[in-house]
Amino acid sequence: MGKDYDVIIVGAGAAGLTAGIYTGRYGLKVAIFDKLMAGGQLALTPLIENYPGYKAIPGPELANLMKEHAITAGAEIFEVEEVLDMQKETEFFKITTVNGKSFRAGVIILAQGSSPKKLCVSGEEELTGRGVSYCALCDAPFFKNKRVIVVGGGNTAVVSAKYLSDLGSKVSLVHRKSTTRGEETIKKELMTQNVTFHWNSIIKEIKGENKVKSVVIDTQGHLQEVPTDGIFIHIGEVPTNALAKKIGLKLDAEGFVVVNDRCETSMKGIFGAGDCTGGILQVSTAVGKGTIAAVNAYLYIKGGWYGDQKTKERPTDKD
Amino acid sequence: MGKDYDVIIVGAGAAGLTAGIYTGRYGLKVAIFDKLMAGGQLALTPLIENYPGYKAIPGPELANLMKEHAITAGAEIFEVEEVLDMQKETEFFKITTVNGKSFRAGVIILAQGSSPKKLCVSGEEELTGRGVSYCALCDAPFFKNKRVIVVGGGNTAVVSAKYLSDLGSKVSLVHRKSTTRGEETIKKELMTQNVTFHWNSIIKEIKGENKVKSVVIDTQGHLQEVPTDGIFIHIGEVPTNALAKKIGLKLDAEGFVVVNDRCETSMKGIFGAGDCTGGILQVSTAVGKGTIAAVNAYLYIKGGWYGDQKTKERPTDKD
Repeated sequence: MGKDYDVIIVGAGAAGLTAGIYTGRYGLKVAIFDKLMAGGQLALTPLIENYPGYKAIPGPELANLMKEHAITAGAEIFEVEEVLDMQKETEFFKITTVNGKSFRAGVIILAQGSSPKKLCVSGEEELTGRGVSYCALCDAPFFKNKRVIVVGGGNTAVVSAKYLSDLGSKVSLVHRKSTTRGEETIKKELMTQNVTFHWNSIIKEIKGENKVKSVVIDTQGHLQEVPTDGIFIHIGEVPTNALAKKIGLKLDAEGFVVVNDRCETSMKGIFGAGDCTGGILQVSTAVGKGTIAAVNAYLYIKGGWYGDQKTKERPTDKD
Repeated sequence: MGKDYDVIIVGAGAAGLTAGIYTGRYGLKVAIFDKLMAGGQLALTPLIENYPGYKAIPGPELANLMKEHAITAGAEIFEVEEVLDMQKETEFFKITTVNGKSFRAGVIILAQGSSPKKLCVSGEEELTGRGVSYCALCDAPFFKNKRVIVVGGGNTAVVSAKYLSDLGSKVSLVHRKSTTRGEETIKKELMTQNVTFHWNSIIKEIKGENKVKSVVIDTQGHLQEVPTDGIFIHIGEVPTNALAKKIGLKLDAEGFVVVNDRCETSMKGIFGAGDCTGGILQVSTAVGKGTIAAVNAYLYIKGGWYGDQKTKERPTDKD
């Protein structure tokens, strides 16, 4: 069987779309598959203020710009076409999608991202979509002028708290530590925005029938039940790694796909980029890794580079 | 002596400005120094078509957007204020600028970029600025409707050839290999634009008095003298590493500053990002590394992270 593409990219978030821009501009035949619409985590982020060059841009807008950019560069994008299987054949990799279609390519770039970590407490699963949410952009409008709990202390948590507060929700932030790792500028704004803080606290239980009524907060052993209309959970990310596992790629202790500084995975011909490879999960780092994966995929296809890690053989765009 | 800043960033290109955006938004007191105006290589690139989110943007415009972004985030930018010396004191690093001013900070981020490699042939140095150029954006307008030679086969070379050709120059491309590594879309355009190619060829000599008159091209032993009005040299990059050398940072064989996947250099408290650290020299990779350097600088200052390379302790923005 011949190949359908030079490169198949799995995942159309910032990393996958960037890899599409670069491989497309190199003149390679490239397809990008996503189980949902293009955009990945970008499409779920209300406002992005730290992608260099855009002081402030809604995530979905940036996602769309990158999608258009990749299409202009020549990439084909298959949306709502989840890749369910990936196999190594003699010469090519074969992927099979949820619609039963198969495609072959010499190179795979895995850029599947990650998904929100669960609290794993009673009530969480039953009440998801009924007051329990992992996406402020998607669900915040339902909580205008209502009470919400935001759980977590990273950027995602503080950005979501600010967003909910801006929309008029009465926000309480629950964090297991005594401070947050969010950006200082946003934290200061939160302080002035009537947000309540529960430091050194965890959620023990989510209560309600058909919809969230309250949560039980455990502050160093002291339990209190706090009435709320909703709870937004932003406590970390779990890498999407089912395909990587299936084909036997090396994963780290948290399940992120291990890549070297060329974004090569442990299997020749498969590259990794973006949130599924761990590190610092930002748009700027995703586009960086998407670029590195694409350039090295190109060099691999052209036969020049793979496996040679000598610095004197460093690939640049200048030589 | 107390510190003047939490972080001093040396170099205001894409990597340095990104590090400024991130450290500024973290609430750190940060200064960025550049020997010229902010923008680095960006400011010298006519058109950028591969920074995700901008299908096509003039380099100087993107440079200015990033500069404004860094200022908005709280970074102070010192332009035309070259850092000449950097020393480790008991508690802080001290830098001294060309104007004789000194500043102290707990953390340094080196983002000094790189500069063009020379051909090192007779006539090159004497005729620089008199027909010999390393910057198409700066000098192309002088060569409208004139004959120019472009030397090199990477993206910079083919982009410059296209730019000169678009402006009406009669362009010949001289490359030591039989093909270029430039992006396919640009190469195709060159083919249709009346550009002459000299493959497997090098420049032996640049001739002229007061201004370039001709070049001697060596094509696998066959010499020919080709009349030209100008020559644009795009054959690679030399990292700016004088400060890194002075303070004793580990450099690779080509002189690039060695950093790990946290953008830590070999000296505690000094981070590196962008072209001076090698790898793939693109805007997208520079902003990726600028982000990584900034986040890890922040974590280092907050006392949480330095020196711990366990993957389970991986820093993300989510926890």
